[in-house]
Amino acid sequence: MVGERRPVVDLTDDEARLKLPLKWGVPEDVLPAWVAEMDYAVDPVVIEALQRMVTDGIVGYPLFGWDPELAESYAGWAERHFGWAPAPEAVHPVVDVTAGVRIAIDVFSGPGGVVFPTPGYNAHHGLASVTGREELRLEVPASAERAEIDLDRLDRLFAEGAQTLLLTQPHNPWGRVFTRAELEGIRDVVVRHGARVVCDEIHAPLVLPGAEHVSYLSLDGTRDHAIAIVAASKAFNTAGLRCAQLVVPDPVSQQRLLDEPMSRNESYSTAGIVAAKAAYDLGDPWLASLVERLDQQRSLLGELLATHLPEVRMRPLEATYLAWLDASAYGHDDAAAVALERGRVMVSAGTSYAAGRGDHVRLNIATSPDRLTEVVERLAKAWT
Amino acid sequence: MVGERRPVVDLTDDEARLKLPLKWGVPEDVLPAWVAEMDYAVDPVVIEALQRMVTDGIVGYPLFGWDPELAESYAGWAERHFGWAPAPEAVHPVVDVTAGVRIAIDVFSGPGGVVFPTPGYNAHHGLASVTGREELRLEVPASAERAEIDLDRLDRLFAEGAQTLLLTQPHNPWGRVFTRAELEGIRDVVVRHGARVVCDEIHAPLVLPGAEHVSYLSLDGTRDHAIAIVAASKAFNTAGLRCAQLVVPDPVSQQRLLDEPMSRNESYSTAGIVAAKAAYDLGDPWLASLVERLDQQRSLLGELLATHLPEVRMRPLEATYLAWLDASAYGHDDAAAVALERGRVMVSAGTSYAAGRGDHVRLNIATSPDRLTEVVERLAKAWT
Ligand SMILES: Cc1ncc(COP(=O)(O)O)c(C=O)c1O
Ligand SMILES: Cc1ncc(COP(=O)(O)O)c(C=O)c1O
Repeated sequence: MVGERRPVVDLTDDEARLKLPLKWGVPEDVLPAWVAEMDYAVDPVVIEALQRMVTDGIVGYPLFGWDPELAESYAGWAERHFGWAPAPEAVHPVVDVTAGVRIAIDVFSGPGGVVFPTPGYNAHHGLASVTGREELRLEVPASAERAEIDLDRLDRLFAEGAQTLLLTQPHNPWGRVFTRAELEGIRDVVVRHGARVVCDEIHAPLVLPGAEHVSYLSLDGTRDHAIAIVAASKAFNTAGLRCAQLVVPDPVSQQRLLDEPMSRNESYSTAGIVAAKAAYDLGDPWLASLVERLDQQRSLLGELLATHLPEVRMRPLEATYLAWLDASAYGHDDAAAVALERGRVMVSAGTSYAAGRGDHVRLNIATSPDRLTEVVERLAKAWT
Repeated sequence: MVGERRPVVDLTDDEARLKLPLKWGVPEDVLPAWVAEMDYAVDPVVIEALQRMVTDGIVGYPLFGWDPELAESYAGWAERHFGWAPAPEAVHPVVDVTAGVRIAIDVFSGPGGVVFPTPGYNAHHGLASVTGREELRLEVPASAERAEIDLDRLDRLFAEGAQTLLLTQPHNPWGRVFTRAELEGIRDVVVRHGARVVCDEIHAPLVLPGAEHVSYLSLDGTRDHAIAIVAASKAFNTAGLRCAQLVVPDPVSQQRLLDEPMSRNESYSTAGIVAAKAAYDLGDPWLASLVERLDQQRSLLGELLATHLPEVRMRPLEATYLAWLDASAYGHDDAAAVALERGRVMVSAGTSYAAGRGDHVRLNIATSPDRLTEVVERLAKAWT
């Protein structure tokens, strides 16, 4: 089904500095392992589609509200990869995933608080307040055996007035892929309270061997209360082009979204749509190689930590290329700052994901084996 | 200063259908003269910059929050064109103009109502409600001699609790360029009430001979209460790429914008930034030709109307390529629908700009002289 594979091509430092101005916008002697971008060349089929678009001069407004080709492309891709797909009518373009989460809450949620499991993706912090709602953190304690959503606490938060759960599935930074049983447990609590779920599934294409992605929307009894936000942009390294998709299974809600004032959701870009279509339609032979590579990087990370930083506690990495590392055993209040100062490696500070977690860092492993090796060696030098 | 001119190149029908999928997504026998896009090829320097970007594979995240090159490019361009420029620190990227207006209100305005002069740009309708504020229309009656903002009514709306004026300068669909004296009059009312101005200046590059663009921000005593939203995207026909600029002159407000949660404003695209920089830095020799062409189209429209539709009342077109036509003399309640059905020409319905104004239409003249001639002939056939 995947056809002839296309390889993952590592970027040289010079190439990475050119292509990834945010991630690699660090001093020359610093290795960047922070923001969620990969040090790999973009799949050539995506570049070719963009080249055609530019040569043809297609830079004006995209279709308004719903793009049938994009919707079909995503639905076909989801069917192939997850064995479940929304109806194309459910798939609406939106500028990016973060904006999609915001819009889904703004348009569909009641005014009650938004439950936000933490540690949580940095751009989700403060998002509830941008929608005028209270942010209710449901923290997984650092000591928890397994990173799970505590259903009793979720139940209590809904009982106290919360009306929305912001779920990230697969999770960043936990690295978790929730099982069907876990998701059903969440659903049952949500349904009991008549609450809503907004599910950020941007990392779904990056589920690694051993786990399986179950879209929250594929569960029975979720279509009236849930919206997912999906994208090709993270898996295909094209986040700067700006197109994600809101998946709105309920037909009444689809119409409600289309009826919103234009200023609600009209910012998705022509280039982002072209990149998403190419990735969904033609990207499988590259994505398969990527997942294989990330699986290898995951194994390598395990070995490197065992050798150089045996006291770091790493949560099982079931998806994505973002490892959540508990470095508290080494005793630094701000482990990321120490990594930068003493090790010249830029990781994401734990405090970006949960208040008071400066002893954790998030490490981006989507790079070459050599760079990952050097990163962990530098962390060891810095922390120990 | 403009250097060697580059010509405006008309698109054939086939080219236009390929390049402008929204505007030209009409049945084969319909001539599109609606959404604000031009039937001209994009300036080659912009295409070349995008080609370089794609070939280099620069499709990841842009810099976060402030882009010094983009800021310098806009400031330099504004200085050359208007003799006034904001400090580069004032110029912040935003995904598009409509989102910029929304964000400026969301972040900086008090909760009171938003005064919205109508007829007004369609995507501004409902925008106040998206920010959770009341929309207070300040209507210019169709009978008014000149399309002007009534300062007494503005004063009254502020006295009654409004806190923001949404100003569009130059105006769509009035076609007006407000004079310095008019803007000073507005400013005085605003200052008296401690209100704010959000000024959509997207059409500023398209001021036609005979008028002069004065940015609201260039007036004394506006820096604490005003934000402008500017863009190269409308003048350079690249609106699908998604990058506009918020101009925030007040340093305290600049910091406040940067301190907002990431979900407030992180959606501007890499391609949009590249296109904007190229347009601002290198586009003058093309823009000069464009303004000349639009000036010719404006004259041609005057002649065509005098010949074929002498009872249409056209407001003086001081800027942009969007003519606001009062066709009430011909007695159609929905002049745009009649134009489409009987004339096979798609214009924008007056009701998109002001309730009850179905006897007006907005006509897009940014096409070839031949097409414009045919459009007006078809309108005459349909309406008379
Ligand atoms: C869970 C999650 N959501 C959203 C995003 C960002 O997506 P976008 O750039 O489309 O807003 C990321 C980026 O890493 C992420 O991890
Ligand atoms: C006054 C005005 N503002 C904004 C826009 C749209 O800008 P954007 O596509 O950047 O939101 C238009 C489009 O014609 C306009 O006329």
